[in-house]
Amino acid sequence: MNALTAQPIVTVDIVLLTLQENELCAALLQRARPPNEGEWTLPGGFVHIDTDEDALAAATRILRTKAGIDSPYLEQLQTFASRHRDSRGWSVSIAYYALVPAAAASDALKWRPVDSIRSLPFDHRDILRAAVERVRSKTAYSSLPVHLMPPTFTLSELQKVYEALLKTDLDKRGFRRRIEELDVVEPAPAQPTTRGAHRPAQLYRLKRKASNTVAMAERNLSR
Amino acid sequence: MNALTAQPIVTVDIVLLTLQENELCAALLQRARPPNEGEWTLPGGFVHIDTDEDALAAATRILRTKAGIDSPYLEQLQTFASRHRDSRGWSVSIAYYALVPAAAASDALKWRPVDSIRSLPFDHRDILRAAVERVRSKTAYSSLPVHLMPPTFTLSELQKVYEALLKTDLDKRGFRRRIEELDVVEPAPAQPTTRGAHRPAQLYRLKRKASNTVAMAERNLSR
Repeated sequence: MNALTAQPIVTVDIVLLTLQENELCAALLQRARPPNEGEWTLPGGFVHIDTDEDALAAATRILRTKAGIDSPYLEQLQTFASRHRDSRGWSVSIAYYALVPAAAASDALKWRPVDSIRSLPFDHRDILRAAVERVRSKTAYSSLPVHLMPPTFTLSELQKVYEALLKTDLDKRGFRRRIEELDVVEPAPAQPTTRGAHRPAQLYRLKRKASNTVAMAERNLSR
Repeated sequence: MNALTAQPIVTVDIVLLTLQENELCAALLQRARPPNEGEWTLPGGFVHIDTDEDALAAATRILRTKAGIDSPYLEQLQTFASRHRDSRGWSVSIAYYALVPAAAASDALKWRPVDSIRSLPFDHRDILRAAVERVRSKTAYSSLPVHLMPPTFTLSELQKVYEALLKTDLDKRGFRRRIEELDVVEPAPAQPTTRGAHRPAQLYRLKRKASNTVAMAERNLSR
């Protein structure tokens, strides 16, 4: 390669997702500089070739420094690369998506229900749409939504999250059997309860081995 | 952005796959220049920011000019981006995979069974492995393998291809039912046959609407 060959701009953008009141929400961050200064976009930034080992390290750094979030479930989504997506020139966005429990939010972020986001600068709406599609289709076949749950949760709460993502009601017994087959949650140790005299619903937590992975189901969980 | 900020190298690499004697094979191409001159690698090249509209256009151009292949089934695989993968510096490979019928081969290519490829320059073996995994897992749930078929084929031939990719035998009736549900093939018009007095097996072809897509199954086709 000729060292002078013009190269594209390379950025990493992140679709950071959580659930608020059982609605899937994405994090937006206000741009501090041109282009599109002051507008709300997906968190992102340039790859720092001096300090980032790889694209995942860049995504982790951007999430930590710009969104205040450490070690969420983080997975590469797709790369958006074209002459037209950024006014600064031919540019590459290596897009990731991340899932966090509702609690893990930094003040700089604005959470918006994904279905209410009508437009975003650059091609960020396409990136957002691809991430939401990925999460919804993966939800039908996997344990992915457990990464949206707080440290402990009931199976009914988990079912509600699946139902919110799949936009459909699920049969309780079938759902519990499928979750058991996925083998990613376990009963949490009993804790003192203030919920009154009735025996509270069993709380579950993510198994340690499942903390940064996704188990795949043999069949669509919603059927 | 500071215009002088150093940017990574951006390339597109392609895992071009076909079936030969029912074995999944990948195309290798001999490198014409350093680094790794003379070694066999995945077909690839730099993004040309002056002429390529986007990454898919770059992949299409590279397939056409370096492998002599036009309009195969082509899909983005994953992006490999790190400081260590290329001796020329921090580099991004936007990797694609392509499927072609056995016939569509150019002389410059060497086809090798994917299971026999022990090492490749750069991180091309990781890219190859990711593509093979993607094709095998997608085969279990979709119509993807139809893109490996010649213009017409029997359902038995299609089943053999699925079996080769899944490395398992399939039940004939169950397989045919699933293929029918996927709704991507149709009987080919009757053609004069020289196969003798017996009625030949019905030939099928890809439906026009399925020519560059993949239909997803509700369940694992191999169960």
